[in-house]
Amino acid sequence: MADPYAPSPKDKFTFGLWTVGHTGKDPFGEPTRPRLTPAEIVDLLGEVEGVHGVNFHDNDLVPIDASSQQADQIKSEFARALRRTRLRVAMATTNLFGDPAFRDGAFTSNDAEVRAYAVHKTMRAMDLGAEFGAQVYVFWGGREGAETDASKDPVEAEDRFRRAIDFLCEYSIERGYGYRFALEAKPNEPRGHLYFPTTGHYLAFIQTLAHKDMVGVNPEVAHEHMAGLNFVHAVAAAISADKLFHIDLNDQEFGRFDQDYRFGSVNLKHAFFLVKLLEDHKYAGYRHFDAHAYRTADRADVIEFARGCMRTYLILREKARRWSADDQVRRILKQVARPSKDLDSLWGTYSRAHAETLLGMTFDRVAMASRTLPYERLDQRTMEILLGVD
Amino acid sequence: MADPYAPSPKDKFTFGLWTVGHTGKDPFGEPTRPRLTPAEIVDLLGEVEGVHGVNFHDNDLVPIDASSQQADQIKSEFARALRRTRLRVAMATTNLFGDPAFRDGAFTSNDAEVRAYAVHKTMRAMDLGAEFGAQVYVFWGGREGAETDASKDPVEAEDRFRRAIDFLCEYSIERGYGYRFALEAKPNEPRGHLYFPTTGHYLAFIQTLAHKDMVGVNPEVAHEHMAGLNFVHAVAAAISADKLFHIDLNDQEFGRFDQDYRFGSVNLKHAFFLVKLLEDHKYAGYRHFDAHAYRTADRADVIEFARGCMRTYLILREKARRWSADDQVRRILKQVARPSKDLDSLWGTYSRAHAETLLGMTFDRVAMASRTLPYERLDQRTMEILLGVD
Amino acid sequence: MADPYAPSPKDKFTFGLWTVGHTGKDPFGEPTRPRLTPAEIVDLLGEVEGVHGVNFHDNDLVPIDASSQQADQIKSEFARALRRTRLRVAMATTNLFGDPAFRDGAFTSNDAEVRAYAVHKTMRAMDLGAEFGAQVYVFWGGREGAETDASKDPVEAEDRFRRAIDFLCEYSIERGYGYRFALEAKPNEPRGHLYFPTTGHYLAFIQTLAHKDMVGVNPEVAHEHMAGLNFVHAVAAAISADKLFHIDLNDQEFGRFDQDYRFGSVNLKHAFFLVKLLEDHKYAGYRHFDAHAYRTADRADVIEFARGCMRTYLILREKARRWSADDQVRRILKQVARPSKDLDSLWGTYSRAHAETLLGMTFDRVAMASRTLPYERLDQRTMEILLGVD
Amino acid sequence: MADPYAPSPKDKFTFGLWTVGHTGKDPFGEPTRPRLTPAEIVDLLGEVEGVHGVNFHDNDLVPIDASSQQADQIKSEFARALRRTRLRVAMATTNLFGDPAFRDGAFTSNDAEVRAYAVHKTMRAMDLGAEFGAQVYVFWGGREGAETDASKDPVEAEDRFRRAIDFLCEYSIERGYGYRFALEAKPNEPRGHLYFPTTGHYLAFIQTLAHKDMVGVNPEVAHEHMAGLNFVHAVAAAISADKLFHIDLNDQEFGRFDQDYRFGSVNLKHAFFLVKLLEDHKYAGYRHFDAHAYRTADRADVIEFARGCMRTYLILREKARRWSADDQVRRILKQVARPSKDLDSLWGTYSRAHAETLLGMTFDRVAMASRTLPYERLDQRTMEILLGVD
Repeated sequence: MADPYAPSPKDKFTFGLWTVGHTGKDPFGEPTRPRLTPAEIVDLLGEVEGVHGVNFHDNDLVPIDASSQQADQIKSEFARALRRTRLRVAMATTNLFGDPAFRDGAFTSNDAEVRAYAVHKTMRAMDLGAEFGAQVYVFWGGREGAETDASKDPVEAEDRFRRAIDFLCEYSIERGYGYRFALEAKPNEPRGHLYFPTTGHYLAFIQTLAHKDMVGVNPEVAHEHMAGLNFVHAVAAAISADKLFHIDLNDQEFGRFDQDYRFGSVNLKHAFFLVKLLEDHKYAGYRHFDAHAYRTADRADVIEFARGCMRTYLILREKARRWSADDQVRRILKQVARPSKDLDSLWGTYSRAHAETLLGMTFDRVAMASRTLPYERLDQRTMEILLGVD
Repeated sequence: MADPYAPSPKDKFTFGLWTVGHTGKDPFGEPTRPRLTPAEIVDLLGEVEGVHGVNFHDNDLVPIDASSQQADQIKSEFARALRRTRLRVAMATTNLFGDPAFRDGAFTSNDAEVRAYAVHKTMRAMDLGAEFGAQVYVFWGGREGAETDASKDPVEAEDRFRRAIDFLCEYSIERGYGYRFALEAKPNEPRGHLYFPTTGHYLAFIQTLAHKDMVGVNPEVAHEHMAGLNFVHAVAAAISADKLFHIDLNDQEFGRFDQDYRFGSVNLKHAFFLVKLLEDHKYAGYRHFDAHAYRTADRADVIEFARGCMRTYLILREKARRWSADDQVRRILKQVARPSKDLDSLWGTYSRAHAETLLGMTFDRVAMASRTLPYERLDQRTMEILLGVD
Repeated sequence: MADPYAPSPKDKFTFGLWTVGHTGKDPFGEPTRPRLTPAEIVDLLGEVEGVHGVNFHDNDLVPIDASSQQADQIKSEFARALRRTRLRVAMATTNLFGDPAFRDGAFTSNDAEVRAYAVHKTMRAMDLGAEFGAQVYVFWGGREGAETDASKDPVEAEDRFRRAIDFLCEYSIERGYGYRFALEAKPNEPRGHLYFPTTGHYLAFIQTLAHKDMVGVNPEVAHEHMAGLNFVHAVAAAISADKLFHIDLNDQEFGRFDQDYRFGSVNLKHAFFLVKLLEDHKYAGYRHFDAHAYRTADRADVIEFARGCMRTYLILREKARRWSADDQVRRILKQVARPSKDLDSLWGTYSRAHAETLLGMTFDRVAMASRTLPYERLDQRTMEILLGVD
Repeated sequence: MADPYAPSPKDKFTFGLWTVGHTGKDPFGEPTRPRLTPAEIVDLLGEVEGVHGVNFHDNDLVPIDASSQQADQIKSEFARALRRTRLRVAMATTNLFGDPAFRDGAFTSNDAEVRAYAVHKTMRAMDLGAEFGAQVYVFWGGREGAETDASKDPVEAEDRFRRAIDFLCEYSIERGYGYRFALEAKPNEPRGHLYFPTTGHYLAFIQTLAHKDMVGVNPEVAHEHMAGLNFVHAVAAAISADKLFHIDLNDQEFGRFDQDYRFGSVNLKHAFFLVKLLEDHKYAGYRHFDAHAYRTADRADVIEFARGCMRTYLILREKARRWSADDQVRRILKQVARPSKDLDSLWGTYSRAHAETLLGMTFDRVAMASRTLPYERLDQRTMEILLGVD
């Protein structure tokens, strides 16, 4: 019998080269796994089965100091591995955080030469992504922040960032790359504070861009959870604004260092509502697992990690279907939804008459306060569906 | 000799009726101070000296169940107190969180009658604010959230909220109230999660409104600090978007319950950079201290609390001036700002020629990485200016 | 067929009067449920089925200002309800936080009269608990803290707290109450900072007491989670010290206000490992649900809430059994446990010979680093058992 | 005129080799400063002026894979640098976190060989520390934790840790090293959760040791702040237990990744109360700055960083003296301290008579609640002393 939770490329699950290729290095410890070449990482993903594609930072593929001959050879091996495994490149992005030149910011640096270099490096990285067919281009400004606000006016920093994105939009258009840009927020780490801390901040920023239509967001579970925020609501805001261009799935305890755990491995409830939201609103983009295996994992366990990300997603998708079809859930949702087209239309469109009518109404506060809202029961039912004891 | 830190009404410092009128009640304890009438609170603020004005929720002034006669008498006494003390009403807002009718939301409630009542109540409260000359109208959706995401689709919740604001904008316009609306974010408390958790989320939301020009934000120190976010950056984002219509000053440890402490009483460094930002960007609006005295305070100590809020602001304003004029600070800022109009203009306006030039450039990463950025020295100097040992 | 998750009094599940009796009042809102008498709350718990007992603060049962006649009547009605429902009183505690007299601490107050009153009030409350057969006596110092550390030397505060507990131990002994004291930590709220922030702090403090044998801890999920700490580890520390005298089960997002949610309703994984730990180590004490229903709940939903707490515990207990019996889990655990009595005994007891032997050994770091630790697979398996798809 | 804030070796300020020697590497970026040899780091500290001593992990001094000849040469150069600069070695510790062999714990590893190796490595490192005259030996169990609690029973983990410390105490005694052990807690990072998350947990653990007298704690500002806890209270608990054997001074925003900032550079108020506590209680041990310079710093700025740590401490020490001598502060503290030897003695020693007397007393709650506690004024005065505007 077929495994109901076996992934297929149609699910659009992707992994970054830096995710399954992560060596286990951390601020206090040395690598625990060997560094793999891009082609080797692709082959590893090929073994996982059901993966749709792979994503990269420019320097995941081509080291920052590679010669053009080295670059050609790496790209050629990578292309062969993609063909071998039938994986596609889904998204590309720029590493604007690793090199010491960016230690005080890339687009927002105080140094005009660094700013120009950051734009230049991104253009080259966009070329590289396009070469491999990437459709989404992500911006994560890992150094766009500060340890001390004495160093920079944050208003000026935002302005610099805006000009860079505006220019790079034009570049994509002019070259015909067809990229959709996806901006990825994070509150802190590696900088003390980052200038665009949440998805909300980027949704606002996008509205100030010259080519706002081609720019959306790439929300990441771990990044909103670092600020203790409800990630489901962050994604809902993006969906509401029609700006969910990409998504980074992983897991993370609230209020801590960036953990990038296996999807669904920390908080099943939030993961469940997230999957439900994505499926309810028919999100059609990539589901990118921006996570890495525990530092204890070896190659075989990295593969288990990758399988687990997708499998948990699919289990939760099935749970979401079951939830929506559940009699008890439906009954409660029907009970608490007290619609009234008449009332809603009173303040749906403004008119003096509507306003007067509404002002003249009397409301029975006690009656409203005494209507049943059995949310404990609803939530308990939800948890039991999650636990599989429904 | 005159006190250099004595406030004056020109500083536009305001307090809410609920701030200095706070009774000290909390989730685990009874009131420690008597409830004062609105007029008594105004008189208390009159004693503080230097206060510009006072703000209120509709039910701070007129209880939700007051008869119209009671309301008239309260308003008349309040008006007399305002004349006596020469205080003005600066801002008004609606209490859409205290009554059990709003226990599952006001504009975002699942119950059409509650939604209509919330709009009705806000219209009445806008009338009340206008009656007393309020110019800013604040929206804090204290119940617009959820304990369990099983209860509501957050996309639908946002949509309901939008329709309410659109309608109320029209109401303000039609009545000629001239209000500027200011939306106030908070990540959680009293609900488990609130739908608009940060100032960034509201800046994005505003762009989707029918009358976006009349709507801005009211960032609050405590609310961003609850999520461990840099409040200075939140205000910078609002300034950058020209949406800083009001500000709630107080203080708060990161990652905790809403503390609403005296301005500058937790983290002097963040408070300093905030005051510097407001003064550098010539913020001309009200500086509202949305804080309350410790539960241990009596009336005299509440007055000290109110004086302390303003005095600390003015001390920090003077420190900001000193900082900007400081030789060491200026030297370092000059050293780290490496401008280049030529380089900036290359990516300031897009053209194919610019793009080609930029692509063709070579950058010396090592040189960029080795330029001096003496931020430890700059930050230490900043701390010493703060400590008054410069 | 019998419900496998139906609780029984043997499970020792208890609820406080203040939990199912919570009125829904919060810092921003009025009560949403009527205040019930203690007897009514007992009757409600009787309806829930399977509950073992009930706990109270002195003033949950007898209001602080009740006359002795009123007290007698309340107690008599309460006793009748207990008989009616066959519920027992399991634990009692003192309310040393609600009255304004305690606004700056009870045992740690700067006011000698307040300190004496706090001790007096606790003695009376211990009498009351004993009258109803309580065996565990909990201390939660809700006001033992500070908003500003200018107010008190924390070393002196700890000393005052110690003297109070020492005295009250003697009182219990002399009266023959047989109480086991259980100290309950919390990092903050309602005070800005509390002096005993975590279970670890109390485990240390207990060792300094005159009657340390009769004093243990009462860890609470929500309180450790407020500090973002792993509650399972806190309970493990208490078990390790043989000091787990009581436990407060509920749920809570990390780094927020005290939420006191239904057990297992936030993070199933932590709840699972907690239940597993309690069952593995055969915890025989009360399992107290120190939680309250959402503010949206009515009486029927409060009952669902109480049922849900117990049911989730029992589901997780069953999952823990299944986990321990699972083939894959067992295989991995066996694989990663690389025991060696010889090696362990070398440093199990000190001797010069052991030390020399150990110093003289050589270790193959690379070999140790390359042994398989398939924790991703183990954790994924754990999550699937939790999800019921094993 | 002499600088009143110039440090001297008598102040016992120390720095670790890894602090001023930090290369600026972080999880997302490459080093920004060259790696210095131990001797070069000592020379750098010599330039700073006023430093008392230097601390090291075994592998800061001697790389884990150095030959004995290499080790001898490094040690000889290090010794010469110490003589040159008149710096002493104050503290030593073991690196039990960097090598992949420790990826799942050192003393708490599931692998008996890793446990034995960890003990062996610590013995060797204790030899090395003793060779250079270190008096304090610190234990930070950077890998003693878990990402998933499926991997290990935390009760067993604690037991393993205890046996290791017991053995190593004997080793120190037998060799006559005279070490005082200092245990350093941290809530998380680099592991998902660490088993001894706070100073309180270690204070409890110490009481279970065979040689508890020689074991104390090494609290670190950043580590308690990561959990949002009041560090001043953590240190007070250590002082109260007479267990403050060492202290790690730095700074850190609450609820984030481990930032290890310059002492006093985040929250001046907490730093002030900390210095005041240490000075009030005449802490005589080392004041170790376990911090590193921003990644933007070059060598000159690293020196400014080190100077800033000490200078801010000395400024705050002077502020603490001023605070204690301040008339307003003294008046308020006198006003709020309402001592009564009679009342205190009633519950100071237990007797039946005392208990009866106390039980029979009546207390005037309203009178107690109405006594003045002008903590807003006290705190505002404190802040103004901090700001230097007193």
